[in-house]
Amino acid sequence: MNPWTFTLNEYTPADTVLNGNRFLTGNGYMGCRGTMDEWGKAEMAAVNLAGVYDQNGDKWREPVNAPNGLFARLSVDGVEMVLGKTPEKAHSQTLDVRRGLFFRDTDFGSVRLKSERLVSMAGPHLMAARLTFNCAADARAELLCGIDTDIWDINGPHLFGHEYNADEILSVMARTGELDIPVAVAQAVACDFPHEERREIRDNGVYRRMSFAAQAGCEYVVSIFAAVYTGLDMEQGQCSHVRGEEKQVAAAPCLDAAKTAATQGEAGETSPCLRAAQACCEQARAAGFAQVLSAHEAAWENLWDHSHVEITGHDEAARAMNFSLYHLHSIAPRHADNLSIPARGLSGQTYKGAIFWDSEIFLFPVFVHTEPELAKSLLRYRIDTLPGARKKAAEYGYRGAFYPWESQEGGAEGCTDYNVVCVFTHRPVRTYFRDCQIHISGDIAYAIWKYYQITGDESLLREGGAEVILECARFYLSRAHRRADTGKVELLDVIGADEYHERVNNNAFTNQMAAHTLECAVQVLELLAGEEETVVETDAGAGNAAGAGNAAGAGNASGGHSGFSAKLIEKLDYATDLALIKELYPLLKPRFPAGELVEQFDGYFALEDCSLETVRGRLLDEREYWGTNHGVAAHTQVIKQADVVAMMALFPDLFTPQTVEKNWRFYEPRTEHGSSLSACMHALTACRFGRPDLAWEHFLKSASIDLVGGGKHWAGEIYIGGTHPAANGGAWMIAVLGFAGLKLENGEISLSPNLPAQIKKLRFPVMLGGERRVVTVTHEGWVTDNR
Amino acid sequence: MNPWTFTLNEYTPADTVLNGNRFLTGNGYMGCRGTMDEWGKAEMAAVNLAGVYDQNGDKWREPVNAPNGLFARLSVDGVEMVLGKTPEKAHSQTLDVRRGLFFRDTDFGSVRLKSERLVSMAGPHLMAARLTFNCAADARAELLCGIDTDIWDINGPHLFGHEYNADEILSVMARTGELDIPVAVAQAVACDFPHEERREIRDNGVYRRMSFAAQAGCEYVVSIFAAVYTGLDMEQGQCSHVRGEEKQVAAAPCLDAAKTAATQGEAGETSPCLRAAQACCEQARAAGFAQVLSAHEAAWENLWDHSHVEITGHDEAARAMNFSLYHLHSIAPRHADNLSIPARGLSGQTYKGAIFWDSEIFLFPVFVHTEPELAKSLLRYRIDTLPGARKKAAEYGYRGAFYPWESQEGGAEGCTDYNVVCVFTHRPVRTYFRDCQIHISGDIAYAIWKYYQITGDESLLREGGAEVILECARFYLSRAHRRADTGKVELLDVIGADEYHERVNNNAFTNQMAAHTLECAVQVLELLAGEEETVVETDAGAGNAAGAGNAAGAGNASGGHSGFSAKLIEKLDYATDLALIKELYPLLKPRFPAGELVEQFDGYFALEDCSLETVRGRLLDEREYWGTNHGVAAHTQVIKQADVVAMMALFPDLFTPQTVEKNWRFYEPRTEHGSSLSACMHALTACRFGRPDLAWEHFLKSASIDLVGGGKHWAGEIYIGGTHPAANGGAWMIAVLGFAGLKLENGEISLSPNLPAQIKKLRFPVMLGGERRVVTVTHEGWVTDNR
Repeated sequence: MNPWTFTLNEYTPADTVLNGNRFLTGNGYMGCRGTMDEWGKAEMAAVNLAGVYDQNGDKWREPVNAPNGLFARLSVDGVEMVLGKTPEKAHSQTLDVRRGLFFRDTDFGSVRLKSERLVSMAGPHLMAARLTFNCAADARAELLCGIDTDIWDINGPHLFGHEYNADEILSVMARTGELDIPVAVAQAVACDFPHEERREIRDNGVYRRMSFAAQAGCEYVVSIFAAVYTGLDMEQGQCSHVRGEEKQVAAAPCLDAAKTAATQGEAGETSPCLRAAQACCEQARAAGFAQVLSAHEAAWENLWDHSHVEITGHDEAARAMNFSLYHLHSIAPRHADNLSIPARGLSGQTYKGAIFWDSEIFLFPVFVHTEPELAKSLLRYRIDTLPGARKKAAEYGYRGAFYPWESQEGGAEGCTDYNVVCVFTHRPVRTYFRDCQIHISGDIAYAIWKYYQITGDESLLREGGAEVILECARFYLSRAHRRADTGKVELLDVIGADEYHERVNNNAFTNQMAAHTLECAVQVLELLAGEEETVVETDAGAGNAAGAGNAAGAGNASGGHSGFSAKLIEKLDYATDLALIKELYPLLKPRFPAGELVEQFDGYFALEDCSLETVRGRLLDEREYWGTNHGVAAHTQVIKQADVVAMMALFPDLFTPQTVEKNWRFYEPRTEHGSSLSACMHALTACRFGRPDLAWEHFLKSASIDLVGGGKHWAGEIYIGGTHPAANGGAWMIAVLGFAGLKLENGEISLSPNLPAQIKKLRFPVMLGGERRVVTVTHEGWVTDNR
Repeated sequence: MNPWTFTLNEYTPADTVLNGNRFLTGNGYMGCRGTMDEWGKAEMAAVNLAGVYDQNGDKWREPVNAPNGLFARLSVDGVEMVLGKTPEKAHSQTLDVRRGLFFRDTDFGSVRLKSERLVSMAGPHLMAARLTFNCAADARAELLCGIDTDIWDINGPHLFGHEYNADEILSVMARTGELDIPVAVAQAVACDFPHEERREIRDNGVYRRMSFAAQAGCEYVVSIFAAVYTGLDMEQGQCSHVRGEEKQVAAAPCLDAAKTAATQGEAGETSPCLRAAQACCEQARAAGFAQVLSAHEAAWENLWDHSHVEITGHDEAARAMNFSLYHLHSIAPRHADNLSIPARGLSGQTYKGAIFWDSEIFLFPVFVHTEPELAKSLLRYRIDTLPGARKKAAEYGYRGAFYPWESQEGGAEGCTDYNVVCVFTHRPVRTYFRDCQIHISGDIAYAIWKYYQITGDESLLREGGAEVILECARFYLSRAHRRADTGKVELLDVIGADEYHERVNNNAFTNQMAAHTLECAVQVLELLAGEEETVVETDAGAGNAAGAGNAAGAGNASGGHSGFSAKLIEKLDYATDLALIKELYPLLKPRFPAGELVEQFDGYFALEDCSLETVRGRLLDEREYWGTNHGVAAHTQVIKQADVVAMMALFPDLFTPQTVEKNWRFYEPRTEHGSSLSACMHALTACRFGRPDLAWEHFLKSASIDLVGGGKHWAGEIYIGGTHPAANGGAWMIAVLGFAGLKLENGEISLSPNLPAQIKKLRFPVMLGGERRVVTVTHEGWVTDNR
């Protein structure tokens, strides 16, 4: 088995949606679903753009799909060759994850059509395809290729006012409905055989018809280049994507600012992004497909060099691991320094293209260990969206930073009050994810602090990271309550990691995450107290936005700190909060007596204790949602995903292996693993108590999720399918942090391997202090080298 | 129109359930549904017992229905005369509410059957019926009468181990399944015409067959007497029902104690309650029906003498008012000194036969103004069930007294976690009435304090009332939270009066009721500080049951009080709590700026503002429940019943008439009035701002609810039909407290009439300082006299 490729040897119409996900090609700027060249929106062909959102009416905001510049449909003697419509004699399709290439090979009888496709890892705006075909008999062939604007959307349309251009380089410009952001797509072809070309503008795009007399057995090759630019990429749009490293980090533009910026200076003249797209295509055509391909391959080679986890002993696992990393690389936003990764990557518009806690808890680890700059970018997205988090906190009557559960550009909350549709009434159901999943702020503080712990690099803290931590801590201060008589500190009305139990009190995971945030706030201020430096002005004065007016007993303005910390405390008017943090921390911090079960939340143990099968057996409809007040799991001990177990995975030092095992054995059978975030936490903790055998199935499930098409595809009546970056990242965590037991801290590598029997050898690179080190782990021991 | 009778002139099978409710006869000890003599469980015939509860398996606990001792079925020439089975030529039935009599008159053609029925107001255990019939032609007649044990139950059966006795006095003894409480029924007949009698014991009861040759046109009369006793009535069972007035008030027996008591001394010998039932029947038969009737009528006359609200000018209203008071009298527990009134009276087992806040807020007012001893009994029920309220508080992790939402005997919480069945999935739905309707404790404190304010009688306070108020206040101390940073005091996760919005924060009604409780606690301690008296030992040591351990700063043990108060503070270890009450009261007490809308709870105004019709239009099933997370009203401003308006009705001094009107006009159109508790609050407040015309329809609706059969009959798939005591009591409140504007305080009567145009004159008695005073109100003014 080639661990780098995955091939399907037939066409299975039922898997069209699934295959669109697993054969995805992308480069972080855009994701091109793994559909056929000749397909359109019915088959969910899409070029999904990172970080460009739009709202149509009162429907959910979601990311925008660009017009498809790689559309290409071949006709032979007037018969269109469309897989699924035209009977095929044979079909295969392959994803080569080492090189980031998607291949298809279809024998329609009269013609055999092959193509290879890439979304360039060497330049974010470029996609290319090379079509090769030969006819069984002499025939009149026609290739219709161009930019298809009749595109798939869930809550669209999002693009309006299309302006087409049918010059030699085809192009289209349109604008999003909500924020008026220009989106431009251009297309060029290279073709070295004689043909006639007619270009035409239609309602649904701009195309060229390339027709010629095809000779039997002759191979014809056409290269297609397509480029996408949006108003957000342009300098005058204050585009963060193209901002130089030397620039000062500043708050991401809010929605109104983005709208203004994107439309500036574009009236009556060729849009800068249209010009850029046209130029990009022209350049690529001039270079030729081979050169585009080789630059792309070189970029991929470099990525693998810094990330490849080589698994010896189990081919299936080795391939799944490669595919997991492939999917991560395909969606990692390397073109910018402050973007993060949506929960379904760039595989479509599900989950509103939003950034969840997945980024900090499941994706950040792989990158911080292999490509720290990228990890920093993910966190910088949170720093830049601090204004959005402050705004959300204020909306709910709190202070500090309440990060969105589903974060879109500028930290806009994409999560709505209604996230599930009841399968019985077809009515939207009120969910409380937006209101109650308050652990998100703590998750972000956790990752920012981890970044410092792992890299030893304080720069992120100074460039806004410390401020985020402080504002998250402040949020918990204002969100916490004390019992009026006993003074007990509580976090009420929350949802933990397990989403099936809404509106619970004192979720252990959440309380621990909140307490840890308070702890980080104190530590970061201590860390940065030493030197005098300028505090970056991000959003001064917003610190106390929700009013509140701290309780009495302020203390001095700098809370006894000096240096950077003193300035930050002053800027944020934080002295009173710091005093309060020190008072509340010991009261909020949950106690975890060794060897005892941790109750997931107040009253959890009193819930009905029934098996997963019992709960499943109560379903009246397989698409029925298990949570909210009416769901079959809501009032039982059955949980969706790791919650107490996740806490134990994230805070290993707080729990003995025996305690972890006891809790694992209690919670694991009660866990549906209905979230792709669950398996990795279980595997990591199983390694922690020395049972990698119990981790193995979770590892395989996590690593192969987008290879086999696992995960849930429906929540109630809502499609939630797509790729699963968090599971991909989780697979890396299991292999490297679990099986190898890697720990980077204070510039040191340590390993405590727990290799499962199935794996003979693990070998992977990590970045440590700017240097690439390669770790090799076997059942005999481990070594590091610099090869 | 005779304002004292209600007659139906035909038989309408569809109204069988409804008529069972509206033709109910009862005396507070038991309620006999208004069904035909010959009917059984299919027609929901039932003799519902007050205060006797049973649980079958894991079904809801509910009150027990006794075997029906008035069962009687006539046959003529072998044909059974059963209304609804045997075609009738004519049928009428009448309720005479002045005398508490139910009449039926059915012409079956071959025989005309008349009967009158009473449940004796002169003696709680006795029921009687007089059957009169004459045949159209000479015929063989047979009357089958006896005790029907095959009785209607919702969650039964509840009686087991029936022992039948077919002596001249028929009898049956059975025991409840859960607590083994004996229930005995006896039956005797008086008949002055020659007949043969055979007595027989069957599976479904014990009967006598009285057969004779009936002569055409001759009238035959049979009187039937039935008596019911239970183990709870017996002295040795520590029966509270028969306890003398002179006895010390003690806690009601807990479930286990009741079980032991009810079975004591009964093994192997005739049960005392069986003997009592037999004796009661024998005595009644000896006295004869006429004497039984006249004693009954005299008792009713006395009741009316103390309660009749005479309405001149509107016959329909006058009759509805009489019927409302009739229903209240029929279910008022005058046979005991510490029972209360279930939410559906004695009309069946709906709402689990439980005591709700209806008793204190909707029923207490009429009795405290007309029959203060009975009002005291209702409150003594709460005093005696304080241990149950303490237990419930402790179960939820709180201190003090958290009264049950649906209180059964001994203060056992009858409310379950699941109170609604989803009409789409047929699955029970988790509701939070039990957990979150915390205003109940404040409602009770409110009524106890009102009793003192109206009567000037401190005895109830000294006999446990003060302790209840203190324990309710203590509950709110432990239930309240402070924001960790701002110190704001909040009552979180509550349900107010409006049940469609579950789990809300800072419901104004609840916060005000809680704050008022704290205020009452301070006031009652001041009131009782003067004299040295013994504190009754009710449940010493339980005061601090839920642990907690008060926060620092205790102060001296008696909180600076002397006399009774000092002892009570010491007994309850209350000094720290008292200090905390004084600290929290001003923080918890809501502010109500004059002229401003009061928000029902945090975030209410942000809910969807749509009309009642819009919300109703979203129903997919007419039985669908509007509340809980999935209900059509839950996330809109549409409410089930008066909430802010109820608060304004209960705390008139806190709001100017203009403020009341502004809120009324905002909330009334948003109110479904889906609860029978809603109309009266709206009418009372409309009078308050001088618009009795706006009150009128609410008054008619409230007063006539059990005459026309109003109110909801279903909550989801659960039958909730029955009579509506709270609406009956509400009708009295509207007439007397609203239209007449009566206020008794400090031994003084004051009136501020708001007579609607429809009423020319209102005349009603009130008890003031042990004296009966009669108030007459006209549009010209008002007078009181002693007639």
